[in-house]
Amino acid sequence: MDRQRLVVAIMAGGGGTRLWPRSRRIEPKQFVAPHAGGDSLLRLTVRRLEGLVPPERILVICGQGHVDLAREHSGLPAEAVIAEPEGRDTAACIGFGARHALRLGDDAVLVVLPADHLIEPREEFQATLLRAAALAAERGVVATIGLPPTHPATGYGYIDRGEPLDDRTPAAFAVRSFKEKPDPDTAREYLARGHYLWNSGIFAFEARTILAAIARHLPDLSEGLMSMADVTDPAEVARVYPTLPRISIDYGLMEKVDDAVVVAAGFSWDDVGSFESLGRYAERRGDRNLSRGEAEFIEASGCLVDNDAPGLVVVSGLEDVLVVRTRDAVLVLPRSQSEMVKKIVEELGQRGRDDHL
Amino acid sequence: MDRQRLVVAIMAGGGGTRLWPRSRRIEPKQFVAPHAGGDSLLRLTVRRLEGLVPPERILVICGQGHVDLAREHSGLPAEAVIAEPEGRDTAACIGFGARHALRLGDDAVLVVLPADHLIEPREEFQATLLRAAALAAERGVVATIGLPPTHPATGYGYIDRGEPLDDRTPAAFAVRSFKEKPDPDTAREYLARGHYLWNSGIFAFEARTILAAIARHLPDLSEGLMSMADVTDPAEVARVYPTLPRISIDYGLMEKVDDAVVVAAGFSWDDVGSFESLGRYAERRGDRNLSRGEAEFIEASGCLVDNDAPGLVVVSGLEDVLVVRTRDAVLVLPRSQSEMVKKIVEELGQRGRDDHL
Repeated sequence: MDRQRLVVAIMAGGGGTRLWPRSRRIEPKQFVAPHAGGDSLLRLTVRRLEGLVPPERILVICGQGHVDLAREHSGLPAEAVIAEPEGRDTAACIGFGARHALRLGDDAVLVVLPADHLIEPREEFQATLLRAAALAAERGVVATIGLPPTHPATGYGYIDRGEPLDDRTPAAFAVRSFKEKPDPDTAREYLARGHYLWNSGIFAFEARTILAAIARHLPDLSEGLMSMADVTDPAEVARVYPTLPRISIDYGLMEKVDDAVVVAAGFSWDDVGSFESLGRYAERRGDRNLSRGEAEFIEASGCLVDNDAPGLVVVSGLEDVLVVRTRDAVLVLPRSQSEMVKKIVEELGQRGRDDHL
Repeated sequence: MDRQRLVVAIMAGGGGTRLWPRSRRIEPKQFVAPHAGGDSLLRLTVRRLEGLVPPERILVICGQGHVDLAREHSGLPAEAVIAEPEGRDTAACIGFGARHALRLGDDAVLVVLPADHLIEPREEFQATLLRAAALAAERGVVATIGLPPTHPATGYGYIDRGEPLDDRTPAAFAVRSFKEKPDPDTAREYLARGHYLWNSGIFAFEARTILAAIARHLPDLSEGLMSMADVTDPAEVARVYPTLPRISIDYGLMEKVDDAVVVAAGFSWDDVGSFESLGRYAERRGDRNLSRGEAEFIEASGCLVDNDAPGLVVVSGLEDVLVVRTRDAVLVLPRSQSEMVKKIVEELGQRGRDDHL
């Protein structure tokens, strides 16, 4: 495959409720820096593409309200940042990205990836993307990146991988089926069987191939997407976008195509989906305590403080507690519940606390 | 006793470590409002004296660094606020107050009271003060206010009361002895015996009587106090004050005088000595949760949030936890340890966190 065909679309539309109050509606997770004082996840994602594609072939797709933040964090030319007038789930976003990719070339091979993952090392990441993109281009199929599971996670979709494709492309397999997020027993079964991979949410395909697949499997979405004569015309996008059907790419498309392929990743991957993930980048403070930002632990153990504002957090006499502090909010909960922040945010919304979300 | 003789000295020199981070070195407890958004304890103390003495016969004695705050909170004329160049404990402070009271009249009867107590109702409080002041003036003795104990507190000194003085002054007794803060067993014994009162730290005496008592029992302190020709001369005060011996009025004087009297208080009293005390003025939120300021409790019970800054505190999935938030600090600890905040502050000091204290 000619590398000149590559276009990368970074999906930066996440709402970021899982890291509240560190991430907010007005500043979701992709704009949060995993290392205190360091680059945001979006910035790291853009930098991870250096050398793979030139800046003018990177798109960042984000919510209307985040355009300025996305421009600032990505450091890309203004026209690289594409606004969704409202979130319509991943199938619409990817179709919209494919329409934009076609502007950059009829034969564009599009790589779609989330803005808020941490991945290392860059070389292995780029090599894996190239392998997936080449497979997608040569075979005219959807190629996904799968992650060898390290534990029976229930928060990710899985890919049941079939036979190796050929000897020429290492770690590439046919996809037998895509599986939705499993219950714990099923997750353990997947892990034990050894031929399941986590679905990374990173895909590669020719822009025209994915639009054809959308036309076949999601005709309503296709009709909406193709009804826009010019996808760079804000008025036209604003008119059409809110009418697009809301469906995920996994459920709406991936589960229906029968010739997808998967490349097993050799890079380390973290979706930074909870404060426990962020905690991996925190400072070790003795007695199993961890801190990001200013904190003191007094007869406390196993506690995690994420302090994003000037000033001090003191935890005394407690065990396994998570304290998140931003300039204008504090969240205190048991660390065992750190995966449940999304539910807390939903509850706050129901209580009319939207102004804090 | 002629009420024109009364002078009230409010002791506002406390460092306020027991309510950190709500109270700070730069803004101790007397400047904290027990009711969110309401008057500070100092302001409430001044207002509690309305009708008893005119403003020009009220003194507020505070640390040098708190003069502006004390003027603002007390609402008194600028000259009412008297600065101690540094804290030298209560005996020096009371002697200094007595010297100032003498400026207002040779026969001044001085009532000394802490700036950071909550007392109700005002009428009963004033009647009790008048009763103590009259006894002090008529008998030329130290009169104290004692509080009928409600539980075996270990945080207060006790007064062993002797015989009733006479039929004319109800609830007035001879003092058999002053007792320092007891251990728990002793406190329970005091409570059971029925003739012990808590030492409120409120005293009445003629200014010349207390200075004579200081001369007799604390000659070094007396020498220092009397060496100042003019106690309103800042330079003279700054020269002498730091040399005064550091000793408490209880230990240095009260335990040594043998003719003190005590008036048992009929008012309700709270020294606001911990966040549990402050919690009495908080909003009840269900599941035994309490809040001052913006807070939400999600599957939490028995928690207390003291939120003094704009923004939200969310406590989820925890029991009996205390969260204190100010603009620039957060403290999280078990409610059972809310009396130990002073120790936490000491520990923070030892860790070099003075800039946060």
